Amino acid sequence: MKVDSVDFFYLAMPQVTTAADGSQDALVVRVTAGPYQGWGECEASPLPSIAAFVTPMSHGACRPVSASVLGATLDGPDDIRRMAATIAYNSMDLLQAAHTWSGIEMAMWDLLGKARGVPSYQVLGYARAYPKIPYASVLFGATPQQTLERARENRKAGFRAAKFGWAPFGESLAGDIAHLEAAREGLGPDGILLIDAGQVFNEDVEAAAARLAAMERTKVTFFEEPFHGSAYAAYGQLAKRSQTVKLAGGEAAHNRHMAEHLIDFGGVGFIQIDCGRIGGIGPAKDVADYAAARGVTYINHTFTSNLALSASLQPYAGLETHTICEYPTGLQQLARDLTRNHITPNSNGEIVLPDAAGLGIEIDPDALIRYRVDVEIKVSGKTIFSTPSY
Amino acid sequence: MKVDSVDFFYLAMPQVTTAADGSQDALVVRVTAGPYQGWGECEASPLPSIAAFVTPMSHGACRPVSASVLGATLDGPDDIRRMAATIAYNSMDLLQAAHTWSGIEMAMWDLLGKARGVPSYQVLGYARAYPKIPYASVLFGATPQQTLERARENRKAGFRAAKFGWAPFGESLAGDIAHLEAAREGLGPDGILLIDAGQVFNEDVEAAAARLAAMERTKVTFFEEPFHGSAYAAYGQLAKRSQTVKLAGGEAAHNRHMAEHLIDFGGVGFIQIDCGRIGGIGPAKDVADYAAARGVTYINHTFTSNLALSASLQPYAGLETHTICEYPTGLQQLARDLTRNHITPNSNGEIVLPDAAGLGIEIDPDALIRYRVDVEIKVSGKTIFSTPSY
Repeated sequence: MKVDSVDFFYLAMPQVTTAADGSQDALVVRVTAGPYQGWGECEASPLPSIAAFVTPMSHGACRPVSASVLGATLDGPDDIRRMAATIAYNSMDLLQAAHTWSGIEMAMWDLLGKARGVPSYQVLGYARAYPKIPYASVLFGATPQQTLERARENRKAGFRAAKFGWAPFGESLAGDIAHLEAAREGLGPDGILLIDAGQVFNEDVEAAAARLAAMERTKVTFFEEPFHGSAYAAYGQLAKRSQTVKLAGGEAAHNRHMAEHLIDFGGVGFIQIDCGRIGGIGPAKDVADYAAARGVTYINHTFTSNLALSASLQPYAGLETHTICEYPTGLQQLARDLTRNHITPNSNGEIVLPDAAGLGIEIDPDALIRYRVDVEIKVSGKTIFSTPSY
Repeated sequence: MKVDSVDFFYLAMPQVTTAADGSQDALVVRVTAGPYQGWGECEASPLPSIAAFVTPMSHGACRPVSASVLGATLDGPDDIRRMAATIAYNSMDLLQAAHTWSGIEMAMWDLLGKARGVPSYQVLGYARAYPKIPYASVLFGATPQQTLERARENRKAGFRAAKFGWAPFGESLAGDIAHLEAAREGLGPDGILLIDAGQVFNEDVEAAAARLAAMERTKVTFFEEPFHGSAYAAYGQLAKRSQTVKLAGGEAAHNRHMAEHLIDFGGVGFIQIDCGRIGGIGPAKDVADYAAARGVTYINHTFTSNLALSASLQPYAGLETHTICEYPTGLQQLARDLTRNHITPNSNGEIVLPDAAGLGIEIDPDALIRYRVDVEIKVSGKTIFSTPSY
């Protein structure tokens, strides 16, 4: 088969706010090859990502992503990896290319699974998908009381684990301690408590370390993204000062090297990969293998639709001892409406990947229309992109 | 002063080819604050970079670059650094943001220099700018004979140093050896010979190492980018196997962390920074300080106009012992026409930064018109970008 077309659908809620909520918009990708279609989602700013696909070439190492994809052979995993290598080389100087390619790559694994009539994780080489324990991914409350209530709600909703993140965490030590204690109280003594600092300490090791005692007291399992995603030295120093709390990071990795560095130089105990950014499912699987070989736990990073969730679980579906997964619970209506079926915890409170072909998620065309953001890009008077009709 | 406007001018040659020649197009940036204007240039794919400035917000950590820049206070270096920090945080998930910001940041140092009536390197804290020995940056010939002729031409043109790069280097060991010997012959025994592999070996240490003996025999000073810019482990291994040839890299760094990692983990002896990618002049100066403190030599990476060249020399202008600089000699007409004045070697064959205010380079408005590529971006029926008239 050849890649006949790649279509981008930019969707958004009517109001997009400054909340750290990645489900307020979406860049959905449809790949068509022969009689098959596959769907993916970039975890990325939609307009620059579309531009990276259609932009005119700047020079040989700054070609649009489209140049390495359209018309390319797509019969198996090697073809996907070959395209990835071509993009890494021919779009070397186009920074946004990794985010654009991520959604396309994901759609290709979906497409290959459909073509072969098996789940994508089997195309990836896993015999089966093990169930995962979902952690609810929620934002801290504005007050400790709100955090406590959210923790209780999640516990009541059946989640054994919860991750609290972002503002107001980092604003004051006393406030952070109050939020940590509230979250622990709400989850109960046996709940798995995870913290996401959203890079708020930049690379200030002392500021982050000041929270460690309270985190150990409240039995935090991991402390995610205390620093800028590239501040490996800061990660490495903090990791050495922690007794029981492991560091987590990697969501910003836009190639597998960055994730491997965070393991090798940053000393993280959990590596979190967003398939919508790292270049898709293939490099995420490489990171999972790399982590597993080094005693580091792989976890998906997902804050958008269930299509992205399915994709993000594929790379470590077959790793039995990597048991927890991120499971966004506060999705905007757009992210819920995008897919006809949903991945929900089973009666054991566990997440099991769909066993349908490909990613096993069906896109709802109505959502592509209802949330559609029209984009038109003209260069030198010629329209090089306009939002496709479904 | 406040940042009143930021304008982008996308320029291109009538024909853009797959040659590894970054001067075939340009993204020029004009920043206006109070009565002053500053000019910069992104070393980046123009369309995605423009899109990253104007795109609608996706969420709080994926805001357009414009949100952190327009209306911001710009009275001194601290204001530039504050904006950089804001973008790093509020545009964390917008990959292209670093490239977009690079040209804007550069323009701000130009503007501050003009406002204070001093060269930008003085605003940056250097008392003076030391002359640099330029190396001609040229592409390998298609045949060893062409490479030999180019080396001779450069020597005749007065260059003591020359860097040869890209295809066909890496295609065959025998061919590479022939090109290395041709380049050495053409430069003469005392010429400074530098090699740029353009990442052709990806992370294949053996393939790169196979060239070391010939490089040592032909007295290559540095071996640039043998690998993918993030393949620190491969760099580190090759660095240990080399006797006299030092590794060089860093041009792809889109934040200072990446450059520091290449020094710390990759063992490079030369760190090459492109101000049009790393986030501008400020983070490049940070890398220069970091390198100098560790015995690593800083060099600019520049393959576009003399505006970019001036900007790229500012961060290490005051480092007396960091003596060589990249000096592109094969610029396309667009890159030559863009500036009214040019930086050319003096009678000693050395490069001296202009002592005029700011970056000391005057843009030719005619070039902005002559090479103009019109761009229009509409989102939800509203035009959010159209190429400004000069």
